[in-house]
Amino acid sequence: MKHRDQIRQIAKKVNKSGQRSEMREKALPADEVMAILERTRERDYSYDRFLSTMCTRPHPIAIKAHDMFLETNLGDPGLFPGVAGLEEEVVRMLGELLGCPLARGYISTGGTESNIQAIRAAKNESGKCGGNIVVPASAHFSFDKIGDLLSLEVRKAELDSQLRVDLSSVESLIDEHTAALVGIAGTTEFGQVDPIEELSDLALEWGVHLHVDAAFGGFVLPFLDRSFAWDFSLPGVKSITIDPHKMGLATIPAGGLLFRNQECMNALETETHYLTKARQASLTGTRSGAAAAATYAVMMHLGREGFREMVGYCMDLTDHLVRGAKEIGVEPLIEPVMNVVALRVPEPSKVRERLMDRDWHVSITREPNRALRLILMGHMSHENVDLFLKDLKEVLSEFV
Amino acid sequence: MKHRDQIRQIAKKVNKSGQRSEMREKALPADEVMAILERTRERDYSYDRFLSTMCTRPHPIAIKAHDMFLETNLGDPGLFPGVAGLEEEVVRMLGELLGCPLARGYISTGGTESNIQAIRAAKNESGKCGGNIVVPASAHFSFDKIGDLLSLEVRKAELDSQLRVDLSSVESLIDEHTAALVGIAGTTEFGQVDPIEELSDLALEWGVHLHVDAAFGGFVLPFLDRSFAWDFSLPGVKSITIDPHKMGLATIPAGGLLFRNQECMNALETETHYLTKARQASLTGTRSGAAAAATYAVMMHLGREGFREMVGYCMDLTDHLVRGAKEIGVEPLIEPVMNVVALRVPEPSKVRERLMDRDWHVSITREPNRALRLILMGHMSHENVDLFLKDLKEVLSEFV
Repeated sequence: MKHRDQIRQIAKKVNKSGQRSEMREKALPADEVMAILERTRERDYSYDRFLSTMCTRPHPIAIKAHDMFLETNLGDPGLFPGVAGLEEEVVRMLGELLGCPLARGYISTGGTESNIQAIRAAKNESGKCGGNIVVPASAHFSFDKIGDLLSLEVRKAELDSQLRVDLSSVESLIDEHTAALVGIAGTTEFGQVDPIEELSDLALEWGVHLHVDAAFGGFVLPFLDRSFAWDFSLPGVKSITIDPHKMGLATIPAGGLLFRNQECMNALETETHYLTKARQASLTGTRSGAAAAATYAVMMHLGREGFREMVGYCMDLTDHLVRGAKEIGVEPLIEPVMNVVALRVPEPSKVRERLMDRDWHVSITREPNRALRLILMGHMSHENVDLFLKDLKEVLSEFV
Repeated sequence: MKHRDQIRQIAKKVNKSGQRSEMREKALPADEVMAILERTRERDYSYDRFLSTMCTRPHPIAIKAHDMFLETNLGDPGLFPGVAGLEEEVVRMLGELLGCPLARGYISTGGTESNIQAIRAAKNESGKCGGNIVVPASAHFSFDKIGDLLSLEVRKAELDSQLRVDLSSVESLIDEHTAALVGIAGTTEFGQVDPIEELSDLALEWGVHLHVDAAFGGFVLPFLDRSFAWDFSLPGVKSITIDPHKMGLATIPAGGLLFRNQECMNALETETHYLTKARQASLTGTRSGAAAAATYAVMMHLGREGFREMVGYCMDLTDHLVRGAKEIGVEPLIEPVMNVVALRVPEPSKVRERLMDRDWHVSITREPNRALRLILMGHMSHENVDLFLKDLKEVLSEFV
């Protein structure tokens, strides 16, 4: 609790210099504003101790590209044909990465927008009002937002012992009112991959849109030694969420939404007046060209070999953590598939708080699979994993 | 057409160096990637010739603040209490600016998200499914997206001779299924302000949520000599959209959504697991801390006096343009209220194309008020307005 109280205190007192709570009449010199910002920035925690987030420090080339395109707006592409071309290139590269070089799509603000838009397209295509979608119980909370936004019932299918969605549970939930089926390639909590091949068969059988949420896994799975069938190479997969601002090392806000073909995109289009383009498929209007340029820069600079190296590093960290955890008697819920680990500990919430008191930012998974959840991103080091394990051991000793 | 073909050509050939269409296997050195980006950036047009957009170059202090907070994520505020505190300060300053220091809200991705969320909150609060919203015919196209997303009928009320929403038309459209009423303070096409005071009375009478879309006007109206009743000082106004990345001179993506009170915000909240905060009211998950910091920096640095000066400059440009247009026999549809001008010209689409051939980016308004639409942002100069008027005169001479 100490930790959280501290956060609240800081948030309340972010600005100690007395410029709080109302809009100033007078201008404040730039150096004074920058001094406030510098003090404030120091109150943010550092990625070095983050084991709870799927975001990371952007790659240096992403930062440079972002700066260069900062004033561009992809919502008005005729004014910015340069960056609009970069977005097209990114979509092409992502399509090729995901088994469909002719895929259509755009750079969204992130996984939530991509998921919203995929389900909205599926709903509009199906013409089903007041219908339902079937998602794994492990689905990201954005699907709850989607149910609320799109007035769809969100049916949650059970997980099997390996925390993949259970196919018989999915089958029992699909009906003629189902507008979309969702599979996850890299679940937020466990990094698990659902049986997408079987979901694809089921989707084809029912004539239902299958959306794959690979917000995290999209930039991991293609670069693992182990191979999975999960992308557009499966005929039932109609759309994929893949986030450059997670394992793609781009800047925020860079989400990716890919559709197998143009028809799905059409189901999203709104007529736009007074812009340089007559129709718009994105959820937002004005949108960042900077993050799209950053995505382009990282993908071009790293290439597949660079991503393989980065993912290899994260998997190394993951193995190192799991081995160390086992040595102190802590087992993972499942053997990690990617760089997400759920550790079985007593009283996960309390363990989390003790770890946060030691400045480790960790998180926990939901019932009925309560566990300590750790993401091993590229900002983490082997040294810090060792320090973390030492602290974990000490914290756990309080719980025996 | 020449111009548009050109755009298409450029978009197709953005990358002449042969790295097109697939994700590279090999890494490409950083300097080569940056060289591609530099060539690409040159193909974007320059704000100096933009008379069609409500965005502008960010203020230099916004760029500095954005850079400093680039890696922060407001979707996980416990990790970034510094920037989360800045967002709170911005909401407080905006609330105070809009007549309600205790207003609640957040920095969204832009006007579209803010409008979506305001109407979603209104719909959820009202508990009305399959209902309608009543918006002015001059409403931004984001309301068409909203109708599609939220399954609401979007009823468009007629405009009066001054291009404000006609109250009797609004009254004829409201019924017991109306979930929200929308008024606009600074219409996208005409810069006009709807009779918000009367809409507020109507909203109270019907017990309906009144949302004010001031995406553009929010940072203009408080700084004009002429004063309007349009914000939270009117008791019927429940939410306001105000975009820092338009006249607020912040970086993209910085939208603002303000609610009169916490109850409206509650209607948007989703439970979030594995994050540092238990509930989330934003539409997106991961979201830019950089743009919020940029907004804070500009508001602190300029203060009210700085904004008054900037708005004064834009209004000067506007007067200069309208005076010059009248001198060549071109009249505005209405006397400009803010820095948006709609000029009555013959065959607006063709005039637009001729102007675009001369590298002026202008736009046109919709039927039945077809006109040439110009926005006078801070990036425009008196010299360029003179050059534009010279070109406009020449272009129009082809049409007599």
